[in-house]
Amino acid sequence: MAHTFDTIAIAHTGFKEKFGIPRQPGLAPAARGQLEILPPYDQPEAFDGLEQCSHLWLQFVFHRASSDQWRPRVRPPRLGGQKSLGVFATRAPVRPNPIGLSVVRYEGLHRREGKLWLDVSGVDLLDGTPILDIKPYVPYVDALTAAENRVASAPPTQLPIRFTPASVQACADYHTDTGIDLHALIAQVLAQDPRPRYQAPDPERRYGMRLYDRDVHWHYRQAASEQDTTWEIEVVDLVVPKDSR
Amino acid sequence: MAHTFDTIAIAHTGFKEKFGIPRQPGLAPAARGQLEILPPYDQPEAFDGLEQCSHLWLQFVFHRASSDQWRPRVRPPRLGGQKSLGVFATRAPVRPNPIGLSVVRYEGLHRREGKLWLDVSGVDLLDGTPILDIKPYVPYVDALTAAENRVASAPPTQLPIRFTPASVQACADYHTDTGIDLHALIAQVLAQDPRPRYQAPDPERRYGMRLYDRDVHWHYRQAASEQDTTWEIEVVDLVVPKDSR
Repeated sequence: MAHTFDTIAIAHTGFKEKFGIPRQPGLAPAARGQLEILPPYDQPEAFDGLEQCSHLWLQFVFHRASSDQWRPRVRPPRLGGQKSLGVFATRAPVRPNPIGLSVVRYEGLHRREGKLWLDVSGVDLLDGTPILDIKPYVPYVDALTAAENRVASAPPTQLPIRFTPASVQACADYHTDTGIDLHALIAQVLAQDPRPRYQAPDPERRYGMRLYDRDVHWHYRQAASEQDTTWEIEVVDLVVPKDSR
Repeated sequence: MAHTFDTIAIAHTGFKEKFGIPRQPGLAPAARGQLEILPPYDQPEAFDGLEQCSHLWLQFVFHRASSDQWRPRVRPPRLGGQKSLGVFATRAPVRPNPIGLSVVRYEGLHRREGKLWLDVSGVDLLDGTPILDIKPYVPYVDALTAAENRVASAPPTQLPIRFTPASVQACADYHTDTGIDLHALIAQVLAQDPRPRYQAPDPERRYGMRLYDRDVHWHYRQAASEQDTTWEIEVVDLVVPKDSR
């Protein structure tokens, strides 16, 4: 039996490509999003009371995942990409119905340029994500403190992040121009280590990801103070992408 | 933009009508459900790992709610049916996209009569509800202990429930015949007080709701020990519905 739903909003975020997006919401509190509420849903009274909620649920479409490609087993990046699990035991985007679920922080509702916008933070959504529903987070129902998940029991460990003086200056300039705190966002996003876990970091290689309209470049360094092989990330520079020049 | 999704499972529950269903999941832990996983999704390996999770999310269709009837403001029963809120500040079933979200407890996966069944408890789903997705509950992401919701900050107060000797016996007989603990389910469901809050209880009136294949009858009594007007429920009897005789 098929069910058809309408896009009620479009998420605008700094995540322009899948690579590097935090694998769960809330891991990067600096990741802001603006939900453009589409007509006929763009009535402020439809959101009346949401300002009394610190958090809300977004049910959305993984619009760049093809559900035709779903497989019963997937290899979550969280498990190093080597161990497989049933698709319904994961939050993987490639699944029979590509409907995502993310809890984000409510940051406000306002009208701008004739449109209604709902501001959120802690997003893990690709720019352009279609939103199907917005619901209040209800702590006494949703916050199950006794729940257990032995597959994903704790947040991933975070890498230490350093910035070169050039990249600090580039972030400061970007903040002046746009009001966007790219320094905090880069630090929080890269601390999750976007690299596929089965790949050993190559200190010679320059990595990059797009955030807003900048390419962020970084490399991996072995942390000097440790006997074990531990890694840190150094952010090298922000670059205006070639395709936008 | 329209998005079409496929039913991956059908929920079988004791809730045969909307009246009386707990207004959130988890309020009635005795409410069991069996999800009949539909082909081609009925592959046990697609669920491998879910047994390591105590709870799971169900994304489902409010199949008896008409989204054509959505209004920007709704009057949640929780607020006595008198105060209105924006539809997106509530979990009301009549909403632009009638997609529900419930967290339930994982109780097991098994094959029976050639079908794959996922057992859950704490359900608040109408019998026959189409399921769109099943996801693991991830406590470090989903259990926001610092979240606030000042519209619905605590579970509703529960009414005391008494059973007549006849109803106790009927529940015991039903348990012997079916293995279903109707006594616990009735106590937990009626403690939520299914009556619309704007209606004062009428002690003369006999109320009824269907649970599985029985009609549960009860009435309201003023609790004797209190000076204030407080109410309790007395379960009078279980009756085989006329339409099934």
